[in-house]
Amino acid sequence: MIVDGSPRELKTVWLEDDVVKMIDQRALPHDLRVLELRDVEDVARAIETMTIRGAPAIGAAAAYGLALAEARGTDLRRAADRLRRTRPTGQDLFSAIDRVMRAVEGGSSAREGAEALAREDEERCRAIGRHGKRLIKEGMRILTHCNAGALATVDVGTVMAPLRAARDAGREFFVYVSETRPRLQGARLTAWELGQEGIDHAVVVDGAAGLLLQRGDVDLVLVGADRIAANGDTANKIGTYPKAVLAKAHGVPFYVAAPMTTVDWGARNGRAIPIEERPEEEILEVDGVRIAPKGTRARNFAFDVTPARFITGFITELGILKPADLRKRRRGTPRRTRARTSK
Amino acid sequence: MIVDGSPRELKTVWLEDDVVKMIDQRALPHDLRVLELRDVEDVARAIETMTIRGAPAIGAAAAYGLALAEARGTDLRRAADRLRRTRPTGQDLFSAIDRVMRAVEGGSSAREGAEALAREDEERCRAIGRHGKRLIKEGMRILTHCNAGALATVDVGTVMAPLRAARDAGREFFVYVSETRPRLQGARLTAWELGQEGIDHAVVVDGAAGLLLQRGDVDLVLVGADRIAANGDTANKIGTYPKAVLAKAHGVPFYVAAPMTTVDWGARNGRAIPIEERPEEEILEVDGVRIAPKGTRARNFAFDVTPARFITGFITELGILKPADLRKRRRGTPRRTRARTSK
Repeated sequence: MIVDGSPRELKTVWLEDDVVKMIDQRALPHDLRVLELRDVEDVARAIETMTIRGAPAIGAAAAYGLALAEARGTDLRRAADRLRRTRPTGQDLFSAIDRVMRAVEGGSSAREGAEALAREDEERCRAIGRHGKRLIKEGMRILTHCNAGALATVDVGTVMAPLRAARDAGREFFVYVSETRPRLQGARLTAWELGQEGIDHAVVVDGAAGLLLQRGDVDLVLVGADRIAANGDTANKIGTYPKAVLAKAHGVPFYVAAPMTTVDWGARNGRAIPIEERPEEEILEVDGVRIAPKGTRARNFAFDVTPARFITGFITELGILKPADLRKRRRGTPRRTRARTSK
Repeated sequence: MIVDGSPRELKTVWLEDDVVKMIDQRALPHDLRVLELRDVEDVARAIETMTIRGAPAIGAAAAYGLALAEARGTDLRRAADRLRRTRPTGQDLFSAIDRVMRAVEGGSSAREGAEALAREDEERCRAIGRHGKRLIKEGMRILTHCNAGALATVDVGTVMAPLRAARDAGREFFVYVSETRPRLQGARLTAWELGQEGIDHAVVVDGAAGLLLQRGDVDLVLVGADRIAANGDTANKIGTYPKAVLAKAHGVPFYVAAPMTTVDWGARNGRAIPIEERPEEEILEVDGVRIAPKGTRARNFAFDVTPARFITGFITELGILKPADLRKRRRGTPRRTRARTSK
């Protein structure tokens, strides 16, 4: 990814000398800090605390966690179980663990499996960029939600890939960055990535999507995904579904950029996707500053599900697919990836 | 309003010995502080900085500001002009100034005009409570946005009035409080008022409305208004319109609680309502803590407009009115209240 104006050989997460290194996403946008994690428990906690977040990035972190377990001689199956319990909604976590465990069953090391997965993650993002680029036209105003940038993957990003590819093709466009409460991944991470890339943008509150769409100020809504059911229903960060409903009401296309590893073939539709509920302090406090009265409670649902009928298309590494066409492109995916509904 | 468990003779804003006193709403929910304002410029700045906010409360503050101008010997017309320039969207500001200026033209003092207005504001809120109470049924789950409580009026509140009346009638219900970025009037003020009243509630992020409505967890959406056009199109805090669209999509009633003074008869429809744009720091910082990267810009639209077709009814002091019936109840309103579109 680009940092301070020059492309740096920095990824969101990588393995180096049997240590997992990752950007501490809680410290951004103010500090760019790289953490060193030495065992699988460190990795599990980093996922739980959202030190690393974004479905594909979580998947890669878990894969590297298994490589750490292997290097430390920890039982791989127990390590996999621990990692699976970190976050319930994002599909790539489960796809990635399955991918590495299959590699191990097939005679490779967990490390080889994890490194192959990370390489594939980057390649998929680049392919998403190539396919999605044609949707980003000169002068467009694009509304995003949460962060589906390089920081949400190993590198490159899902939503960010077509934006970067269009920019590299010389197109000028503008991005409305929905701040994304409670964790503010839009204001903190997407704004940071767009700033690093020199792409023109402004942060808006999540509630502003209605006004912007009503005024005709948005030409395209572009979001990532945490889990896609086989029928195309899509779980993504809380606040995505309102944007999809508003986009449809105003005749604006709504695209989801995600690799096929985010599809959960075991989930027939969105009702099979578990919605994580996180600590209420994430809402009641901002950076440790209490905003609500003492004693006030909150409900912190981390994701919502957008039904397939609101989704114009999926920008995947296989091309831009309509929800109904998703199933046809299942080839290459192992026959049975279980829908994890733990927690 | 009720504070710390016992009804206290505390209003949001009042006049005492030629001093305007008001609760500092920027200090809530942590501190209950009463400010003393001695001239019209102090009042104008308090409105601009949202030390006092909420359409009827701003109206009453402006009316008292004119009483201060009168007491200090300031030219009333210039004072009125200064106050009109504080905030462009809320209608009660203009209604209240016109009301006091008419009283003065009719031979009363500005003080008498302002005190009559404040009394009427409370009476209207109580009437809104009596009419709206029947919508709040046992076991209901109600979604609110922003603060339309006692703090948004002189006392009692608009949305809060039916809630309080239903509670007093022994009904139990639950309120989902949308936090309302950027200024967090839901998490800070509505949660505080509901806590003081002992009404069960939880704060959610603004983006959670979609999930809650989709799950069937909301029976009624209830919001206030800053300006209502003659056809029923309603300007309210940014983030209101998405809730209206979602409520309609899920067949859930969407009511607006507001006094008739919020109707701008000079605005034929919502397109005539100016939308205030406020300082970007309100989004980029929370309590002085910077959340976005240095150099990042924001667009801070303070309101949006919900078209009348999304509104089930208006809870007014005259009863519950359908948008189409609003015009029929114009009697008693002076023939021409100009639509102010000055910023």
